Amino acid sequence: MIDFSRPFAAGRPDGTNASAREVLGHDGRLEPGSLHEIPARQGRAIRLRRGERLRVVNTHGSQVGDFWAFAETDPGEHLSMEHLRPDLRKLRPEPGDALVTNRRRAILTLVEDSSPGVHDTLVASCDIHRYHQLGHEGYHDNCTDNLRMALSALGIPLPAVPCPLNLWMNTPPRENGEMAWLPPVSRPGDHVTFRAEMDLVAVISACPMDLLPINGADAVPRSLSVTVLP
Amino acid sequence: MIDFSRPFAAGRPDGTNASAREVLGHDGRLEPGSLHEIPARQGRAIRLRRGERLRVVNTHGSQVGDFWAFAETDPGEHLSMEHLRPDLRKLRPEPGDALVTNRRRAILTLVEDSSPGVHDTLVASCDIHRYHQLGHEGYHDNCTDNLRMALSALGIPLPAVPCPLNLWMNTPPRENGEMAWLPPVSRPGDHVTFRAEMDLVAVISACPMDLLPINGADAVPRSLSVTVLP
Repeated sequence: MIDFSRPFAAGRPDGTNASAREVLGHDGRLEPGSLHEIPARQGRAIRLRRGERLRVVNTHGSQVGDFWAFAETDPGEHLSMEHLRPDLRKLRPEPGDALVTNRRRAILTLVEDSSPGVHDTLVASCDIHRYHQLGHEGYHDNCTDNLRMALSALGIPLPAVPCPLNLWMNTPPRENGEMAWLPPVSRPGDHVTFRAEMDLVAVISACPMDLLPINGADAVPRSLSVTVLP
Repeated sequence: MIDFSRPFAAGRPDGTNASAREVLGHDGRLEPGSLHEIPARQGRAIRLRRGERLRVVNTHGSQVGDFWAFAETDPGEHLSMEHLRPDLRKLRPEPGDALVTNRRRAILTLVEDSSPGVHDTLVASCDIHRYHQLGHEGYHDNCTDNLRMALSALGIPLPAVPCPLNLWMNTPPRENGEMAWLPPVSRPGDHVTFRAEMDLVAVISACPMDLLPINGADAVPRSLSVTVLP
């Protein structure tokens, strides 16, 4: 019987996934203006001080980024999609919107979005169970383990896995409530910029889904880039 | 400064809220065929064995019920709205749909729905922060604390607060992504029936929201009823 209570339920990532050991900048704190890669299929954590602005760049245009944010003082307080939706009274944030935690406090503001604004707040991060459902056998890189590993690389505990903000993921619900699974409509170089409203740790996973066309029609996972604006 | 890490952040429920001390049936296990009340503004937990069917009755027709389910062997595995939506590829479950956990296993099947089928999977349970946002001062009964109390009455720990299935809550997103806050369209006596697909603990909170018309145009919270079918 699989032990569902532990991460890496079906083995461990192989050596190509460095999410648990490679850290961006100095302990996750980036030099403003420096550009850092989130490698394809991997996750990284970034520390932000209140007022700092984080830009996530869709380098190749077709890549989904699963995005989380945790209060630095207590990772039990985090960006929460089910609190964000009723707070904004809409399914997707737009520039100018404050994004709230599970305690209904602003943790980030979305200050800029150069893309057509198609992001998802409805879908859990992929996990090993999802890949097994889709027919994959053995371990498969997944955003949930990337989150766990990226935080563990900074020594930060993760009490539970929140629903991510899925940047550029194109899974719009129709009026009848049915959802579609479509490639992103973003273009190479499109980016979103967040301003931190408290000291926080953000995590971005370059989604490793290669069994559905969620990362482009060719289903090839690619890298993302991040920078803290000067 | 409010300690956001603890429940009952702004005081404790007064003596009228018995969610932490009153238990349905024998330690939450109901005699099949017996009808039990979930009092207005309160929550109760119910233990179900795999195969048992739980009916939730909207006695007055206008009342929203926040609904959760946890694996009996591990409350870290629970009914999860962000896993349910992609699994069903739609926003709302319908009769015949299996409802999955955060580990993508079926925990319940929705076997029957006598109402028009308008339920919500998008909105977090109300909490003390929500009532303070709406202008209320001091403590206010809320579904999040009702969940905590109903589980604690059975001695069950709660690792995190999942997004509930909001039975009869009428907050449909429009095609443009905007959400409306509307009274329920259910009628007195409407009910939904779930079949347990594993041993589990369900929690139902008769939502105490009285500052928005989510529990009917008169914004008066009322009771619900539950029964385990013989």
